[in-house]
Amino acid sequence: MKKILVVGLGLIGGSLAMALKGFEDYEIVGAARRQATVDYANAHGVGDRATLTLGEELPQADVTILCMDPDGIVDFLRSHRAEFKPGSLVTDVCGVKSAIMTGAECLPEEVDFIGCHPMAGTEFSGIEHAFAEMFQHSHLILTPRETSRLEHIALMERMARYIGCRDVVKTTPQEHDAILAYTSQMMHVIAVSVCDDENLFTCRGFEGSSFRGCTRVAALDVELWTQLFSLNAPALTMCLDTLLAHLKEYRDVIASGDREKLNAKLALSAGRKREMDLPGPDLLS
Amino acid sequence: MKKILVVGLGLIGGSLAMALKGFEDYEIVGAARRQATVDYANAHGVGDRATLTLGEELPQADVTILCMDPDGIVDFLRSHRAEFKPGSLVTDVCGVKSAIMTGAECLPEEVDFIGCHPMAGTEFSGIEHAFAEMFQHSHLILTPRETSRLEHIALMERMARYIGCRDVVKTTPQEHDAILAYTSQMMHVIAVSVCDDENLFTCRGFEGSSFRGCTRVAALDVELWTQLFSLNAPALTMCLDTLLAHLKEYRDVIASGDREKLNAKLALSAGRKREMDLPGPDLLS
Repeated sequence: MKKILVVGLGLIGGSLAMALKGFEDYEIVGAARRQATVDYANAHGVGDRATLTLGEELPQADVTILCMDPDGIVDFLRSHRAEFKPGSLVTDVCGVKSAIMTGAECLPEEVDFIGCHPMAGTEFSGIEHAFAEMFQHSHLILTPRETSRLEHIALMERMARYIGCRDVVKTTPQEHDAILAYTSQMMHVIAVSVCDDENLFTCRGFEGSSFRGCTRVAALDVELWTQLFSLNAPALTMCLDTLLAHLKEYRDVIASGDREKLNAKLALSAGRKREMDLPGPDLLS
Repeated sequence: MKKILVVGLGLIGGSLAMALKGFEDYEIVGAARRQATVDYANAHGVGDRATLTLGEELPQADVTILCMDPDGIVDFLRSHRAEFKPGSLVTDVCGVKSAIMTGAECLPEEVDFIGCHPMAGTEFSGIEHAFAEMFQHSHLILTPRETSRLEHIALMERMARYIGCRDVVKTTPQEHDAILAYTSQMMHVIAVSVCDDENLFTCRGFEGSSFRGCTRVAALDVELWTQLFSLNAPALTMCLDTLLAHLKEYRDVIASGDREKLNAKLALSAGRKREMDLPGPDLLS
C-alpha cells in the first residue's frame, strides 16, 4: 500500500486527511507535534492513523503534504531535505507560493515538489474545526516546477477531484501571488480594517449578511496571516493602493451629492460584478 | 378578516408577502403595478392574492407595508396620504429611516407610522427571486414615532416572530442611519470598489469564500442603492473616511516590512472580531 503523509494536522491538514481517506490505494497518515492532536485525530478518524513519530514515516511516504504556515514549511523542507523518499512527491497547501517554491529548491533532485493552494478554509483554526467537506466546489491551484513529473501532476489532479474540488488551475508562483494578493489577502485586510471601526460593538443587532460576509475572516490566525501578508507585501501593497483609490472615488462622489454620477458609477461596478457572476455563500444558514 | 397590504412586490415585498401568509387572522394582499408581477404572485402563492387595483385595497387595509425604494415610498405617502384607513398602521422595509420618517409626517394624525427595516436580502431583485425564508434569523429594526400606538408595536413584533426574525431592535431614525452607514451601506461601497479593480476578470479560478463573501453584494440594484447612499451621504462619508484611515494603516505597516508591528495590529483586530462573534454565512453551499 502506498502512503500519503499529511504533516501538520491543523484546520487544513486535518480536513485534508479526512477528505483523502479512501483515495485509491493510499494509506493516509497524519503527523502532528502534540499528543493531544494525535489523540483527537485517531479518535475522530482524521486520516487512517495519526502519529507523533514523523521520522519513521517520512522516508516511506510516496506523497508528503506540508500543512504548516509558510515559515514552518520552509523550515521543514530545509531540516528534512535528506529524509524524503527518492522519487516521491512533496507538496503543500499554503497561500503564498513564491516563498515556498524558493524554499523547496533545497530538495534533492530526485524529490519532486509541486506547490499547491486549495482555495478553501474558514476563519477558525485547529483540528477540532476540520471537516472532510471543506474542499467541495473550491478551486485548487498548482504551481508545478518546470521539471515536475507529469504523473505527479496527474496524481494531484486525481486527489483534487477526490476531495471535491471544482477545478484545478495551473499557474506560476509569481502569478499566483499577484492574484492572491487581490482575491484573498486583500479580503482579509478589508475585514480587519472594518473591525477596527469604533462602532463595531455598538452595531450588534444592526448587521445583516453583507456585514457578516465581509467581516467573517477577520477572526483570523494572527501568526499565519502575518506571514502571508509579509511574504507577499509588494503585491499586496499595490492592491491596497488600488483599492484605496477606488474607495476614495466612491467616497467623493457620495459626498458631492451628485446622484447622476453616483448612479452611473454604480451601474458600471455592478455590471462588472454581474459579468463576473460568482456564486455567493448561502444566505440562509 | 383583517387585511395586510404589501405595496410593491419586488424581492423584499414578495418575500414578505410569502412569509406573512397564515399570520393570525390577516389576509395578505399584494399590490403591484405590472400585470406580469401580479400574475407571477398569484401563480406562486405570493400572499393570499395579488392585485393591480391598489385604490380598492388601501382604504380597507389594517396594515400597509410599503416595499418600494426610498423615493417611491416618500412619493407614495404624499400622493396617497388621504386614502389610508383611519386607525391603521403604515410601515415600510427600507434601508434608510430618517428620510422615510420625515416623508411620513404628511400622514393624517389618525394613521400610525412605524419605520421598519428587516436586515435581510440578497443581491438579486424582483419577485422571481423572492422566498419565504428570507427573514429567518435576521434582525428587524423598528423606528416608531413617539406617538406610535403600543398595540401597533406589539403587532410588528408578532409579525417579526412569525416571519422568523431573530430579534426586534427599537431605535431612532438617526441612530439607525448612523449605524447602517457602517454595517450595510459601507459593505456595498467596499464590494463595488473591489470589483472596480482591473484584475477582476483575470482572477476567475483564484477566488475563495472570502472573495465571494466580500463581493457578493456588488451586483446591486443600482437605482435603489443610489438612493440609499445619497439619502445617508453624511454618515456614509464619515464611515468611509474612517475605513480609508484604517486601511491605510494596514497598507503602511505591510509595506514597512515590520512583522512584529503587523502581528500586534492583526492580534488586536482579530481579537475585536472574535469578541464580536457574529456567525458567518455557511461556507459549504
